[in-house]
Amino acid sequence: MSNKKISNSISDSIKQWIRPEIRALNAYHVPPASNCIKLDAMENPYQWPESMVDEWLGLVRDVELNRYPDPSASALKDSLRKSMSVPEGADILLGNGSDELIQMILMAIAGKEKTVLSVNPSFVMYDMVATYAGMKYASAPLNEDFSLNIEAFLHAIKQHNPAIIFIAYPNNPTGNLFDRQALQEIIEAAPGLVVIDEAYHAFADDSFMSEAGYIDNLLVMRTVSKMGLAGLRLGLLAGKSQWLAEFDKVRLPYNLNVLTQATAKFALAHQTVLDEQTTIIRNNRELLFAELSKLESLQVYPSQANFILFRTEENQASIIFEKLKDAGVLIKNLSPVGGALQDCLRVTVGMPNENAAFLKALKQAL
Amino acid sequence: MSNKKISNSISDSIKQWIRPEIRALNAYHVPPASNCIKLDAMENPYQWPESMVDEWLGLVRDVELNRYPDPSASALKDSLRKSMSVPEGADILLGNGSDELIQMILMAIAGKEKTVLSVNPSFVMYDMVATYAGMKYASAPLNEDFSLNIEAFLHAIKQHNPAIIFIAYPNNPTGNLFDRQALQEIIEAAPGLVVIDEAYHAFADDSFMSEAGYIDNLLVMRTVSKMGLAGLRLGLLAGKSQWLAEFDKVRLPYNLNVLTQATAKFALAHQTVLDEQTTIIRNNRELLFAELSKLESLQVYPSQANFILFRTEENQASIIFEKLKDAGVLIKNLSPVGGALQDCLRVTVGMPNENAAFLKALKQAL
Repeated sequence: MSNKKISNSISDSIKQWIRPEIRALNAYHVPPASNCIKLDAMENPYQWPESMVDEWLGLVRDVELNRYPDPSASALKDSLRKSMSVPEGADILLGNGSDELIQMILMAIAGKEKTVLSVNPSFVMYDMVATYAGMKYASAPLNEDFSLNIEAFLHAIKQHNPAIIFIAYPNNPTGNLFDRQALQEIIEAAPGLVVIDEAYHAFADDSFMSEAGYIDNLLVMRTVSKMGLAGLRLGLLAGKSQWLAEFDKVRLPYNLNVLTQATAKFALAHQTVLDEQTTIIRNNRELLFAELSKLESLQVYPSQANFILFRTEENQASIIFEKLKDAGVLIKNLSPVGGALQDCLRVTVGMPNENAAFLKALKQAL
Repeated sequence: MSNKKISNSISDSIKQWIRPEIRALNAYHVPPASNCIKLDAMENPYQWPESMVDEWLGLVRDVELNRYPDPSASALKDSLRKSMSVPEGADILLGNGSDELIQMILMAIAGKEKTVLSVNPSFVMYDMVATYAGMKYASAPLNEDFSLNIEAFLHAIKQHNPAIIFIAYPNNPTGNLFDRQALQEIIEAAPGLVVIDEAYHAFADDSFMSEAGYIDNLLVMRTVSKMGLAGLRLGLLAGKSQWLAEFDKVRLPYNLNVLTQATAKFALAHQTVLDEQTTIIRNNRELLFAELSKLESLQVYPSQANFILFRTEENQASIIFEKLKDAGVLIKNLSPVGGALQDCLRVTVGMPNENAAFLKALKQAL
């Protein structure tokens, strides 16, 4: 077939058909991390005991790869309900990671005139998926110590009349839990929905899960990523069935594959192993926090997550980040984000030897 | 916390914030199929030989569930390029099944004033995802024998100026391959993109893959679902890199989990096993077609897929469908869709004993 469309018209065609706000985006870039100590991605560094792996593989053997997955994932939902103490009054919706849940929610709401509201800084996907869904995005600044500025937030609610509010609890990338009473004020003041994103719940001392299903406009989001299953991509949303039924309509019918369903269900049946790992990570976090706090040139922020945010002296963050990378330790450089994150670095809590290697390299870099 | 929002206002809130076109939708319903011979879902009925399963499990053992997947899935892309003969000139984009690829494409295009065009009848997700993305959907009727009505289609292009056209090749649920020359006319006449959806390619004699990357507005979509991996949820889109770069921007960064990536790559390294299964299914399809064609009350449509569509006498389809179900054989009743599919049933080609059980039950039902 002859190609009538001349090759240099493809950019015109892209301009004609792709939405301008998508054309303006850069693809989300994940830097490669080969041969590094990987402390950039909030992963749980621990694997399962050999006997547990054997048992898992015995189960995987019987998974029918040739059959479509259970579209309702009902067995997995039962396991998650039990494991995450989802109240009876709440329904459950599952996604390929929290990311897909955010996407489902915003696709169901969508509309150029509608606003997604969060705090700044927070998880980048709220903003990105708002753009995918063609919505407006607004954020209210946190206080200088990254605590919630409730006045600023209530003002933003009045100003933007948000269809939906996302609050990460604990917050990412700052690691802190916001004041619970203030969040309750936000939930009451919100004209639309409020999603409490508890991705880092495993490492935190508080949760809104017990309220899911009992407050009309509250949705609580969780993930198994920080429980040592980042590779699986499984997120959970709990809330009133009426809301979840709407989001479920835009769920792609077979969104969770057979291996994810079988593996997550298996892992949750071994909750004690996951909990032990979580406890070790929390303890290591406290040790790492104590060591970092000794370094006088750094400002270290308390964390209820499996990472620690710290601020370097002015314009030193990127230099230190590169020195660490040269020393074989990859952390996350948030300084390029700018604003309140200027001069900030974020380190995931790794295994003791990894944390020690990080601290050693950091001391040399300072 | 007191719940100030009174419970019966939740429906008002849903009306306020959920898009009307989503509220109007019913959730995609997948009927349960327990203890049935399952010939409803176009699954490959064959599993892998035991030695291949052992080898696979050895590989799965080393998959790091605790680490995020490779966001670019580059090793898997290399395998797919080789296995599916993706031309050098084409880039590859991967999704959780074709469904997620359709969603990415339409999210990047989106807009109430833009139209998705296909034929009628065809794959339901084109229409559904167009609704999710807030786009218009239009379709041009096929001829009575389900062949392409090129005049009607070219007219629909002029009438709707579609941003994107989806053509399933072979078509689902009709099973036939459209005239290749006519599709080439459509590609030339299209003002925007044309996706040739080759989900059933494994069972067909023709493909547009060799043109991917060489025609500006052509995208070719494939899946591994019909190669015996329906449980994995993996779809592929091939086309010009400039287009794929735009769709990639709305891809959720870790959309393909570690187990999907490892398992699909492994399976493609054992292509001969998959090909042998495909050949058996094609042969069984011909046998099933011959047997069905002997039944005088049925009109049976030739198929290049792993299913066969047939038309019963007037108002008999649902009765026959229920009788088959009572006899323990689940097929797909398309009659409720109406229109050209009135009185139509679709049966997936199963194993010889399954096909025999279906034929026996069908003869009793007629």
